[in-house]
Amino acid sequence: MTHYNPPLATIAAALAEGQTCATELTEAAIACHRPELNAYIAWAPEFARRQAAAADAALAAGCRPGPLTGMPIAVKDHFGVAGLPVYAGTVRELPARWQQEGWLIRALRRQLAVITGKTQAVELAFGGVGLNHHHGTPRNPWDMTQHRAPGGSSSGAGVSVQEGSALLALGTDTAGSVRIPASFTSSVGLKMTAGRWSTTGIVPLSTTLDTPGLLARSVADVAYGFAALDPAWGDPHRFNAQYAHWVPTDVRIGVAGAPFWSHCDATVATVVRDALDQLANAGLRVSDCAFPEAEQAQQLLHIGSVVAAECDAFIEAELPEWRSVLDPIISSRIADGGTISAREYLKRLKRHEQLGAAAQARFASVDVIAAPTVPIQPPLIAELNSLETYRPKNFACLSHTCVANYLGLCAITLPAGLDADGLPVGLMLMAAPHQEERLLAAALVCQTVLSSKKTT
Amino acid sequence: MTHYNPPLATIAAALAEGQTCATELTEAAIACHRPELNAYIAWAPEFARRQAAAADAALAAGCRPGPLTGMPIAVKDHFGVAGLPVYAGTVRELPARWQQEGWLIRALRRQLAVITGKTQAVELAFGGVGLNHHHGTPRNPWDMTQHRAPGGSSSGAGVSVQEGSALLALGTDTAGSVRIPASFTSSVGLKMTAGRWSTTGIVPLSTTLDTPGLLARSVADVAYGFAALDPAWGDPHRFNAQYAHWVPTDVRIGVAGAPFWSHCDATVATVVRDALDQLANAGLRVSDCAFPEAEQAQQLLHIGSVVAAECDAFIEAELPEWRSVLDPIISSRIADGGTISAREYLKRLKRHEQLGAAAQARFASVDVIAAPTVPIQPPLIAELNSLETYRPKNFACLSHTCVANYLGLCAITLPAGLDADGLPVGLMLMAAPHQEERLLAAALVCQTVLSSKKTT
Repeated sequence: MTHYNPPLATIAAALAEGQTCATELTEAAIACHRPELNAYIAWAPEFARRQAAAADAALAAGCRPGPLTGMPIAVKDHFGVAGLPVYAGTVRELPARWQQEGWLIRALRRQLAVITGKTQAVELAFGGVGLNHHHGTPRNPWDMTQHRAPGGSSSGAGVSVQEGSALLALGTDTAGSVRIPASFTSSVGLKMTAGRWSTTGIVPLSTTLDTPGLLARSVADVAYGFAALDPAWGDPHRFNAQYAHWVPTDVRIGVAGAPFWSHCDATVATVVRDALDQLANAGLRVSDCAFPEAEQAQQLLHIGSVVAAECDAFIEAELPEWRSVLDPIISSRIADGGTISAREYLKRLKRHEQLGAAAQARFASVDVIAAPTVPIQPPLIAELNSLETYRPKNFACLSHTCVANYLGLCAITLPAGLDADGLPVGLMLMAAPHQEERLLAAALVCQTVLSSKKTT
Repeated sequence: MTHYNPPLATIAAALAEGQTCATELTEAAIACHRPELNAYIAWAPEFARRQAAAADAALAAGCRPGPLTGMPIAVKDHFGVAGLPVYAGTVRELPARWQQEGWLIRALRRQLAVITGKTQAVELAFGGVGLNHHHGTPRNPWDMTQHRAPGGSSSGAGVSVQEGSALLALGTDTAGSVRIPASFTSSVGLKMTAGRWSTTGIVPLSTTLDTPGLLARSVADVAYGFAALDPAWGDPHRFNAQYAHWVPTDVRIGVAGAPFWSHCDATVATVVRDALDQLANAGLRVSDCAFPEAEQAQQLLHIGSVVAAECDAFIEAELPEWRSVLDPIISSRIADGGTISAREYLKRLKRHEQLGAAAQARFASVDVIAAPTVPIQPPLIAELNSLETYRPKNFACLSHTCVANYLGLCAITLPAGLDADGLPVGLMLMAAPHQEERLLAAALVCQTVLSSKKTT
């Protein structure tokens, strides 16, 4: 996985100056696609070529409709894209209304971005490992000898940016579904604050916790995509002018305590501790940080959050015939939620709200709170062949990332390094609600420090 | 009930010119208070006098912090006001945290308005008739021979503006709780679109359907209060310049069909039909209007909406010790909701959303849809002494107003006239979400027409 691409800002400048074109970028992306990795449920090179031609026609006419014009972008199965099928990871194609494009896809279309296809996902986005028994589980490109989990639920998204078939990938994150695949594939994954970006046009898992997210090879590229799409920005240059110049001593990192370390594989913990040491040595203000709400949020994963009930209600209302054809590892989780009372459901909702309100105080003296993104190595698929072996691994995958969802935070993962087995380990940074700018500014500094260390 | 007060805009001008002062207005309001009507659970004349003195000091110093400076305003029990008790209509005072002031009360305070006290309300705001067996049911001032229902749940709010102890009253409306007491007392009541005004600092009944609202003697006064408080306005003059000059032919009224008439008392239907005829004769464009979503919304009142489940969850989380001391007419309704499943709850939520989306199309060719506000006369309290006699009357009270809540609309009631027994009848106008301005503009025209008719 040493495929190189220049930063999106450099590509954009080259496009603007006519040194490259959308078709060239798209052909390069198509050439990078490796079917054996199975990143896509609907790989759409001809669809992409038509969009690239449109982008080039606009550029030739002197129009550049947006910062993402001509950029190859992969879209998670769950997003409606007119003309491409939607499975939401299930065995059947969903009714045509689910192809309707929501806010985020319309934003891509307006900018004449190039959609390369729909990436694989866990059925109904309800799982963190990345398994899909209907369409096959994408391979984690960091182990070509054994089939390892790519992370889920946006299981094809990380693979797509790593293989180079897309420069940016859209995912969704309800309990970690952007950050886990990003962490497992050495990518960067940003989970937005719930409510900041609309989830219209996305097959829902949880009406209260779903958030869109972005994956790319670098923090700079994710920041570029964020600033290109966010209504408050729409302009990566302006964003960079304001946020891309933090120096190490500007960044205050709180390191979360025991609940994020006590169940960590030693290999993972070592890499993340080393990364935090590097950051402290580079001058970032790294300190320990009390974060009791995190442990309470993690307990919601045990006792059950609102997700299963909301997913059950969605199936009941929209896809009742799907119940009988769901993978048992999914339907068993939904069944858990479908049977709770309204009282219990509303109690859980209230609990999220209360914990989230309490957690905001933790960011009074730090910009971000850091932790390992996932406490375990990407598991071997061969070791996940029963509900009994799957459930604890799935739980471990979600156990750190879910905290940001349950507490209403935004969060990012960036590569912390490789472990002793050469497998990627992610460093997660969480920030207060709607503090994506601060989160990205801090993450840009972290990645600069960690990259320079690796090459020395 | 012939107590006269000049329009709020005239009072504001007199205040600005020093022709009156907050203390004079407040003393006049205090003199109007009639304890035998029992409008207040916490009547606070000394509290009001202190605020009036502060307003006068500001005015004397050349400061007028807002359009409501010095205006006596009554606040429903359910709003937190620092220094005044909160019962939310229950038998016990709620914990002190419920005195914390939310967005709307803070807006009053910033303007140095004069809060005259906390008005009576139905326990937990969960009822439309206006009964309260703990603190007594306010008297409907339109029948001084027999004790008639004042309407609920903001049962003291309409009485307070009618007796003249307040020029404006704050209520809350989850299924009709502002409009029913306004209709029963010949007042005007505005229910905001859910989400337009924050419900922070208000003891909740339904987290999804609660809305704040305003009551006053006239549409002009309600419009004044709306424009004084709404963040998009903050200025009644600017609002009037834009919306107070509609002429009759500007107003397109759709008259809702059978579901709003088939269960109406003949006395009520006659008054509202006459009013609509007057409006048509004055040149308003009155036409019949298909509104099938209304009937479907009314069915949710029968089969149960989300309110009981949300109220149950609130009690469970915040006031569990209150369960044993709730009035049986309230606790029986909550119990109905507490036992439904999360699946059923989420199905109902979805149903509201779908019906609301469909209903928006009904406003493509009309500004407002009209109907009788309440299909029955204010009932006699003596006839409501059992659950069996109470429930059908309560259901009737809510059956028209609930439609706007379930469909996400804004709505207003204004006096249509008096029935053959001299009891007030309300005309309800409903408008599309966030169309409060259009709703008020139409209601101003209607009230002008209906008032001029009465005096000729």
